[in-house]
Amino acid sequence: VVTEAVVEAKARPEPRVKPSPTGRRTVKLGLLGCGTVGRGLLELIDRNRALIEERAGVRFEVTKILVRDLKKERPGVDRSLLTDRAEEVVANGCDIVVELLGGIEPARTFVARAIADGKSVVTANKALLASAGAELFRAAAKTGVRIGFEASVCAGIPIIRTLESGLVGNRVDTLCGILNGTSNFILTRMTELGESFESALQEAQKRGFAEADPSLDVDGHDAAQKLAILSELAFGVPIDAAAVKVEGIRNLEPEDFKAAKELGYVLKPIAFAQDTGDALDLRVHPAFLPVDHTLAHVRFEDNAVLVKGDAAGELIFRGKGAGSLPTASAVLSDIVDIARNGSAPFRFADAPAKPAAPDGHARFYIRFPVIDVPGVIGRIATALGSRGISISHASATLVPGKPGHGNVKILAHDCRASVLADTIDAVSRLPVLAGRPVAIRILEAN
Amino acid sequence: VVTEAVVEAKARPEPRVKPSPTGRRTVKLGLLGCGTVGRGLLELIDRNRALIEERAGVRFEVTKILVRDLKKERPGVDRSLLTDRAEEVVANGCDIVVELLGGIEPARTFVARAIADGKSVVTANKALLASAGAELFRAAAKTGVRIGFEASVCAGIPIIRTLESGLVGNRVDTLCGILNGTSNFILTRMTELGESFESALQEAQKRGFAEADPSLDVDGHDAAQKLAILSELAFGVPIDAAAVKVEGIRNLEPEDFKAAKELGYVLKPIAFAQDTGDALDLRVHPAFLPVDHTLAHVRFEDNAVLVKGDAAGELIFRGKGAGSLPTASAVLSDIVDIARNGSAPFRFADAPAKPAAPDGHARFYIRFPVIDVPGVIGRIATALGSRGISISHASATLVPGKPGHGNVKILAHDCRASVLADTIDAVSRLPVLAGRPVAIRILEAN
Repeated sequence: VVTEAVVEAKARPEPRVKPSPTGRRTVKLGLLGCGTVGRGLLELIDRNRALIEERAGVRFEVTKILVRDLKKERPGVDRSLLTDRAEEVVANGCDIVVELLGGIEPARTFVARAIADGKSVVTANKALLASAGAELFRAAAKTGVRIGFEASVCAGIPIIRTLESGLVGNRVDTLCGILNGTSNFILTRMTELGESFESALQEAQKRGFAEADPSLDVDGHDAAQKLAILSELAFGVPIDAAAVKVEGIRNLEPEDFKAAKELGYVLKPIAFAQDTGDALDLRVHPAFLPVDHTLAHVRFEDNAVLVKGDAAGELIFRGKGAGSLPTASAVLSDIVDIARNGSAPFRFADAPAKPAAPDGHARFYIRFPVIDVPGVIGRIATALGSRGISISHASATLVPGKPGHGNVKILAHDCRASVLADTIDAVSRLPVLAGRPVAIRILEAN
Repeated sequence: VVTEAVVEAKARPEPRVKPSPTGRRTVKLGLLGCGTVGRGLLELIDRNRALIEERAGVRFEVTKILVRDLKKERPGVDRSLLTDRAEEVVANGCDIVVELLGGIEPARTFVARAIADGKSVVTANKALLASAGAELFRAAAKTGVRIGFEASVCAGIPIIRTLESGLVGNRVDTLCGILNGTSNFILTRMTELGESFESALQEAQKRGFAEADPSLDVDGHDAAQKLAILSELAFGVPIDAAAVKVEGIRNLEPEDFKAAKELGYVLKPIAFAQDTGDALDLRVHPAFLPVDHTLAHVRFEDNAVLVKGDAAGELIFRGKGAGSLPTASAVLSDIVDIARNGSAPFRFADAPAKPAAPDGHARFYIRFPVIDVPGVIGRIATALGSRGISISHASATLVPGKPGHGNVKILAHDCRASVLADTIDAVSRLPVLAGRPVAIRILEAN
């Protein structure tokens, strides 16, 4: 997604933001969008203006704000700044364009125009980066401006600058995180309150953590986009979010949470990336984590990222992964950084993309929905065993209120994921099966 | 410690590190010291040279290395770079001076000379910052160079740049962490293996986590120095490490760990800083943490910092707080940052220092070593009650192998720390007391 075609670093162009006669720099901001994050940013700039000026010597002036509907009530927002014409924002003598529209168009067109006009851009828009990142970063490198995107991943957690700057001297080979707050909120409710997926999702929607159409979140695509951005920074190669193997959380049932607990695990929505040298293992899926795994303690809507550097060792960053003010905090950090340090962008070699790693192996928990419970463990265990999947634990339970229906739950010894998938396909065709089996990978201690 | 007297940000001087004709910048490094961290840095530069060049467009050249003893064996270090004269390092056309000597003198003199010579400095030396930070930062601001000190606190955890840059738009009012790995290692052994303080300390020394003289670590001064540096960045006011109230961990006994466990807590070495508006509450002490507190899971030599920002919310950073390569990783991140972004330092207003906050209140666990155990709970409880300390839980245990000796353990309801201290002083004078009571603050959920 986030590719820069620049191999040779150019001498940095003169900073666009010039120091004022008093020594303070005044930075003119043009805002595209005035939704939740936009209003959060205005509130934050207003509230902490003096603090930021003291700390960084930067003074902000918002020149124009693009909105769709000029007539809508926006308490606390200066009406005279509003416009419904993007040109008025981009071409209005601002220094930095802040894109908070979300979605791909018209954000892409406006951002490209700003870059062509020699303006640095700050964006919270991971969908834009996922679909048009490569072309936008190439254009930015050409004009010598910068695209700040701290807010596009994990909102308030400064993970982008950590990978860019804090770990700049480290070879990172593994990155593992909880990158989708909605999924983590749902799985935490299912773990701690025994709720069903549907009921936990409704609660997330009620609290504003989940969209009306939750598929981006609960099917893993949101986490995949974030993982692609982080992995590209960590591993220094171009990564397409479509290369991330994705499994959602819709099929999880209270049974699976009970089983996790009984076996000493916690079910968490995991995003995992590993550079194996000549290939990349990139995946998003629910996983069983040992209760003493660092990510097992990350609850509700919190996000966390675990990074392994060859020098710094294992680092864990945790915080709010979404929300108006946490996202605005990240946007503001990019704005200040561009104002202070000019447009020196983070650069990758124009490295070739790496292929997907062959399927790894792991231990798995598998639940088979079955009819005719008595005797069925034997049939499933035999089918698994004949294909080389060996079992460390098996149990069967009845589904309450559904006479004759049950679940066979299996803990498989270490096996290759692709072999297990084929085996499950075969077992699914047994006449005793009442639905799709659910297989959940078990992560070992971190 | 880390004060900058600069109120008005000056226009940034031209970066000293000029782009080379090929576009790469070559950065010449002069090293003061070639101990554990110095050799780690050389190893890391050597190992990840190509990676850093790709990422940041920066190429390193080590010009000279100051050592005390030229004849000592240093496997892997180019002998021709060694010198025992500091001038050869500082005045040898290097761009950045990396100070890894430790201790105050001669580090202070050499760093001051480098700054006067217009060179930025990177240091891992928190004792130097604690004792001479103010003068060095003032000098650096005057010559327009920078002092990088990411490595001085929590080694591999990029907490300095997080406070400087990631949270630049946030008002931070609370900072709580485990900043001393040695103390955390010792308390973890005492918690999980039931060891005595002495035996856990010996193990820490055997593994190289503790110095022969461990007092800086176990008496809390090391954590206090780190807390002062972090708090100064977080709160934007000058802070003297001597203003941090310090309690060490030497008096803790296996009894206290048993009590913690029984009551649902974990004993951890905590550093806590809070800006209450017109005062600062700064303290380092062992504390009882609820088992589900984020910092309760930080084990052995790991460090962690919890920061509360008014926009980003609660953030937690965790990782290795010491060691050759983690520290070298932080040193390298500062070197790259100075090479890429020049010498724009983080600036504070010349804010007046804040006074110490009046003693707060909390719940406490108190252990009274006693003789004549029978009946003694009543005498102690009465003494506490008569001074307004109310008790939620009391128990008495015998000390094995010491007939007639025991411990009375009290859980006090919320009370003012100063009132409790006075009360404990009074109770200490009761004839049944066999030693100094130990009072441990209870932190509530984070």
